[in-house]
Amino acid sequence: MIVAYDGTDFHGWQKQVHPDRRYLRTVQDVLEKAVVKVMRQPIILTGASRTDSGVHARGQVVTFDAKNEIPPDKLILGFNSWLPDDVQVRAVDVVDNKFNPINHCTSKGYTYSLAHGCSNPLRKPLFDRHFHAFTAYALDIEKMQEAAKHFLGEHDFAGFTKLNHGRKTTVRRIDTCEVCKTEEWKIIINIAGAGFLWNMVRIIAGTLLEVGRGYTSPDAIPEIIASCDRRRAGKTMPAQGLSLEWVAFDDQLPNKLAISKKPCSEK
Amino acid sequence: MIVAYDGTDFHGWQKQVHPDRRYLRTVQDVLEKAVVKVMRQPIILTGASRTDSGVHARGQVVTFDAKNEIPPDKLILGFNSWLPDDVQVRAVDVVDNKFNPINHCTSKGYTYSLAHGCSNPLRKPLFDRHFHAFTAYALDIEKMQEAAKHFLGEHDFAGFTKLNHGRKTTVRRIDTCEVCKTEEWKIIINIAGAGFLWNMVRIIAGTLLEVGRGYTSPDAIPEIIASCDRRRAGKTMPAQGLSLEWVAFDDQLPNKLAISKKPCSEK
Repeated sequence: MIVAYDGTDFHGWQKQVHPDRRYLRTVQDVLEKAVVKVMRQPIILTGASRTDSGVHARGQVVTFDAKNEIPPDKLILGFNSWLPDDVQVRAVDVVDNKFNPINHCTSKGYTYSLAHGCSNPLRKPLFDRHFHAFTAYALDIEKMQEAAKHFLGEHDFAGFTKLNHGRKTTVRRIDTCEVCKTEEWKIIINIAGAGFLWNMVRIIAGTLLEVGRGYTSPDAIPEIIASCDRRRAGKTMPAQGLSLEWVAFDDQLPNKLAISKKPCSEK
Repeated sequence: MIVAYDGTDFHGWQKQVHPDRRYLRTVQDVLEKAVVKVMRQPIILTGASRTDSGVHARGQVVTFDAKNEIPPDKLILGFNSWLPDDVQVRAVDVVDNKFNPINHCTSKGYTYSLAHGCSNPLRKPLFDRHFHAFTAYALDIEKMQEAAKHFLGEHDFAGFTKLNHGRKTTVRRIDTCEVCKTEEWKIIINIAGAGFLWNMVRIIAGTLLEVGRGYTSPDAIPEIIASCDRRRAGKTMPAQGLSLEWVAFDDQLPNKLAISKKPCSEK
């Protein structure tokens, strides 16, 4: 399935139990319940990306194993009819049962949306405030564009993740990193790559923000990356600006899931 | 002041007390508290339009009387710094103290946003769902455009309001009524006029919907209006599709408030 969601009212993708045994509303849990209603059998969902609390998605890829005789176009209607307003199943297809959306993922695309110059309250997003982060600084976009190029390629991103990330290697490859002006006082950072560490996109966005406000020079980025020092990179930007746009897989993969790779042209 | 708000989490414009003495969050109440914080004196706000629960605004006009030595551009910063994320003061100016935004209003502009063809779940708004109504029917926009013209001019709109409207006359003049396709499967109904009855725009939208789905012919509109029969008009459409875009006043009125007349080009 290709799944889109407004992350505002979710505690992220992954099913979880709060320490006080309070129920935490997560996308995995809500989606699983809808799929069970239609499939009438126990279901375990696997998502390509474990998006954090408050992060949105337009192209999350989710799989499950089930005995099924219902055609995919009927499944789409069924799943959506059981889903709340803030989650949508956008495509369904049958895939090889060896397919795993985490292991077979070759790259992922994210956008980070940011409103700047918000010391002027008229520039602060109102109707689309749940889908932008905002900063008081008026940013120098050209400098950010210059800085963004330095993230391209393979680097050790140890300085761009939480300290206890629990990963064997922190080397990752970034294929796209660009800053686009979308409207007056609004920018989108487009980032795609083979894999990301926890909070990596949000820390890259925070580092580009430091460049945009003139605190860090674009030329300092290679050194900041090489230092592998979390303190040299920028702040972790808020979740609401981040959206998982698409997930791409090996070529041998079936048809419709390729839709997920389409960028964020349509909302 | 020109004020914009996302009506989703408000019980409309007007301050009110729930029968159980529960607090009802309204725009007037929230805005009044922010203005009092800055002006440090008792304040009573008057709004040009008493928008209903769930209705949005981009160009509400609001006045108050106060002894004041703070310049308007400082007031804007002050008010906004005390306001929550879903209300914004977009302009402030000093006006003649005889000015009353209800009595001196000469016309108001509303938009009604509608997603159609939503029996296909992929056409249902996700990220902008709070700002659209939606219908399962695929609408014939040309027929709706034809029907919309019949609302223009002065008519008795007794059939297009709640039954106990409590108004002396139900005759109103409509200057603009047009249906525009904004995106694939999305339309906006633009309505402007000298004054509106309670729920009038939402009932006109509901009547145009009946035309779009082929249930009512465009030629039947004059007769439906003339009947003054609420049962002949369409349903009252949901609040979330409605937005107050601008309020216009007599020409003798001061400068900046004219901004409010600008249509909904910017969100």
